Amino acid sequence: MSQQSLESWIEIPQDSDFTLANIPFGIFSDSFAGPRVGTRIGDTVVDLNALQSEGYLQGLGLPEGIFASSVLNPFMALGRSVAGLVRNRIIELFSADNQALQSNAEVQEKILRHDNQVVMCMPVNVGDYTDFYSSIEHATNVGKMFRDPDNALLPNWKYIPVGYHGRASSIVVSGTPVRRPNGQRKLPTEDAPTFGPCRTLDFELEMAFVTCKPTTLGETLTPKDAEEHIFGMVLFNDWSARDIQKWEYVPLGPYLGKSFASSVSPWVVTMDALEPFRTQGPKQDPAPLPYLECDVNANYDINLEVSIKPDGSHDEAKVCSSNYKYMYWNMLQQLAHQASNGCNINVGDMYASGTISGPTEDSFGSMLELSWAGSKTLPMPDGSERKFIQDGDTVIMRGHSGEGKNRVGFGEVKGQVLPAK
Amino acid sequence: MSQQSLESWIEIPQDSDFTLANIPFGIFSDSFAGPRVGTRIGDTVVDLNALQSEGYLQGLGLPEGIFASSVLNPFMALGRSVAGLVRNRIIELFSADNQALQSNAEVQEKILRHDNQVVMCMPVNVGDYTDFYSSIEHATNVGKMFRDPDNALLPNWKYIPVGYHGRASSIVVSGTPVRRPNGQRKLPTEDAPTFGPCRTLDFELEMAFVTCKPTTLGETLTPKDAEEHIFGMVLFNDWSARDIQKWEYVPLGPYLGKSFASSVSPWVVTMDALEPFRTQGPKQDPAPLPYLECDVNANYDINLEVSIKPDGSHDEAKVCSSNYKYMYWNMLQQLAHQASNGCNINVGDMYASGTISGPTEDSFGSMLELSWAGSKTLPMPDGSERKFIQDGDTVIMRGHSGEGKNRVGFGEVKGQVLPAK
Repeated sequence: MSQQSLESWIEIPQDSDFTLANIPFGIFSDSFAGPRVGTRIGDTVVDLNALQSEGYLQGLGLPEGIFASSVLNPFMALGRSVAGLVRNRIIELFSADNQALQSNAEVQEKILRHDNQVVMCMPVNVGDYTDFYSSIEHATNVGKMFRDPDNALLPNWKYIPVGYHGRASSIVVSGTPVRRPNGQRKLPTEDAPTFGPCRTLDFELEMAFVTCKPTTLGETLTPKDAEEHIFGMVLFNDWSARDIQKWEYVPLGPYLGKSFASSVSPWVVTMDALEPFRTQGPKQDPAPLPYLECDVNANYDINLEVSIKPDGSHDEAKVCSSNYKYMYWNMLQQLAHQASNGCNINVGDMYASGTISGPTEDSFGSMLELSWAGSKTLPMPDGSERKFIQDGDTVIMRGHSGEGKNRVGFGEVKGQVLPAK
Repeated sequence: MSQQSLESWIEIPQDSDFTLANIPFGIFSDSFAGPRVGTRIGDTVVDLNALQSEGYLQGLGLPEGIFASSVLNPFMALGRSVAGLVRNRIIELFSADNQALQSNAEVQEKILRHDNQVVMCMPVNVGDYTDFYSSIEHATNVGKMFRDPDNALLPNWKYIPVGYHGRASSIVVSGTPVRRPNGQRKLPTEDAPTFGPCRTLDFELEMAFVTCKPTTLGETLTPKDAEEHIFGMVLFNDWSARDIQKWEYVPLGPYLGKSFASSVSPWVVTMDALEPFRTQGPKQDPAPLPYLECDVNANYDINLEVSIKPDGSHDEAKVCSSNYKYMYWNMLQQLAHQASNGCNINVGDMYASGTISGPTEDSFGSMLELSWAGSKTLPMPDGSERKFIQDGDTVIMRGHSGEGKNRVGFGEVKGQVLPAK
C-alpha cells in the first residue's frame, strides 16, 4: 500500500468496513446507468467508470471502458499488479490532503453515490466453482455426528484439501431471497423417500476467493505460484438442505442439497488489502506432500459472525463467532491442489473454503453443528427457538479484519428464506 | 422433418454419419476465417455464416451474424423451433432436386469446405456441467466390485438420477491430447498416499446433452417441460483416474480424478434428428416419484462403440459395443431432477449420462468394468494387452442411429494420452 495517510475527505463512519485501507471492487447499478464497476469508501460508492472517463485514472495502463462492465472479470484479468495500481490511485485521490477531486464538486456529482442509492449486483461471472472442506473443526464435528466419534476424520482428510465441484449458476448476490428447496428426503422411520420441502435448511459460514489469472490445461501450480492467481475474497453462504443432501450424497457427493442457492457478499476485497492480516495457520501434521508444501503464512485473521433475524423481528440473534484463521488448509494449498492434475483455472473461478468452524461451541459455522444435529435449540430475540432455518428468517454473515482506520471488512452477505413452492 | 427426399447433390459416402437426415451444428475454423458455425453433409462442411450472408437463410427469423460466433450458445438460445427451421432449410437446399445452390458454383466456393480443410472447435461454452450415473448396469458393476456383490445398488439409486457437479473448464473437443494426471493415490499396501502419475487411467463411454432454454432460480420443470430445453447431444469421454478418485472421493465425490479432462465430439446432433430413434426405456421399478414420472418414450436407440489404438499401431481394438437405450434414467428425468430444487438452468449447460454399460461383458463402458478392476486383460492389435489406458493410446468413441440414407451419427470423439509431466 502507498504511504498516504488513511484519513479521507469522504466521511467514513466509525466501525465502517470500507476505510481507505480497503478499496474493494464490486458491480453496482443505479437510476443513472446499468451495472458497472465501483468501489466503496464509508457509505459512498465511487463510480470507477466515471472516474476513468473524467481522467483520474490515467497512466495506469487501463484499457478504455474497462469499468463499463457488468462483471469484474475483464478488470480482474488485467492481473493483481494493475488492480494494485488502481487501488493505490484511489487511496491517493480520496486522501484528506489530496485536492484533485476534493475541490471539484461538479465531477464529484458524476462519480459519487450514497450506498442507499445503488443496487449491488453479482460481482463476478463465475465459470467454475469449487467448494472445499478445509476446517478441521467442521470436518471433525460432522464426522462425530454421522460417523465414528473416535475416528471422526476420514483417512484422506489430512492429506488432501478435500473438495467438490459445485453449481456456479445459482450463486447469487447478497439480498437475493432464497427459496426453500423441495427435494427427496427419507426419515429413518420411512421405507422410501418422499418429495417435499426441505425440513432441515441450514447455512454454512464460508469465505470464497476469486481467481484473476488463468492456467492452461496440463499446467500446474506450486502454492507459491498460486498467490498471483488469487484476486480477492468474499463472504459465502453455502446454503444447505441437510435432509436432501443426506439421502442423495452417497457415493457421488453433494448435489441438489447445495445447488438451489449460494450467496456472496457484493464487494470483492483484494488480497492486497488483506495483506496486513496474514497469519500462521494451524500446524499441519502429517506434513503435506511436497506439492502442497507452503512455507509462507497464508492464513488470514478475519473475524466472522452469523446472525439470524426472524421474520418481523427488529433484532438479530448472533449465533456464531468464528475466524477464517482456523482453516487447516490455506488458499494457496487449495489452488495448488486444484491445479495439480492439470485442470485449467479461468479468470472468475470461485473457490469456497468449506464451513469455517472454530474450536468452541459458539464458533461452529452451521446450524447442524450449533444445534448438534438438532439435539439442542438456539434462542431467538422474539422468544422463538431454532434448530435449523425457518421460512422468513434472514441469515446475515459479516466479516472484517483490523479496527478503526485500518479496518478492512466485507460488509455482509444476507438472504431471507422464502417458503417452498 | 420436411418431406424432401434424402438424396443430396453433395456426395455422401456410404456409412456416413452425416446424411441429409442429420444436419448437426458445430464450430469450425479454417484458413479463411476464425471459428464460426457450420453443419456437415458427408465429408463437406457447410459455412452457415456464409450461407446466411449469401441470402439462403432468409425468412427464418435469424438475427444477422448469428453464425459468426465461436460457440453455439447464441444460436441455441433462439430455441429448438428456430433451429428446426434452419435444419429444414438446409435439408431443402442440399436436396438433389433443389437447384438454388446446386447450380451456383461461385457461391458454393464461399460456403463449402472439405472436412479435411477445417479444424473443429469446442462447440459450446459450457456454463455448468453435471455428470449423471444413470446406467443400472454400470452402477451395479461398480457396486459389485467395490461394495457388496449381493447389494450392489445403493438404496437411493432407483429413486434418484444420482449425479454430481463436474468441472466445465476442462471439457475439450475431440482430438485434443489428454495429459495423464498426477495426483495422490494410495496402494492397499501403503500406509500413506504418494503423489505421482495416475496408474489406472480409464475412459468412460458417455453421451451428453446440451440445454438451449434457461430457467430462472426457483423455477422447476416436469419431465415433459424438459423436452424443449434440450437442444442436442454429443459423445462424451469422461476420462477417469481411478486411483486418484478412489482415494479422494469419500465423502464429497469425484474431484481431481475427473477434472483433468473430458472430451466431446464436435458436432451437436439435434434432438429433432434423433426423433425417429426414440424408444422405450427399461421398466422403472419402483415407480419414480411423481415429479419424475415420464409417460413418453424418452430413450434413444444409439449404437455406441469404443476402440483403443496403441501408439504406432495402424489398427484399433474395439473393446466395447453398447447402446444409449440401456439408460435407466432418461434425459427428461435427469433435467427435471436437476431443476427440482429450483436450481437455474442456463443455455449451454452440459449434462452427461454417466458410463453407458449394457448387459453383456462386451458392452461395458469402461476399462474398470471390461478388465473387472484389473483382474483380466484385453488384447490389442499390436500384441500388447491392456487393463487400463497406456501412454500413447488413442481412445476413440463412435455412435450412430439408423442406416443408409436415414443414418444419424455423431462421428467420433477421440483423444491420445500423453505421458504425465
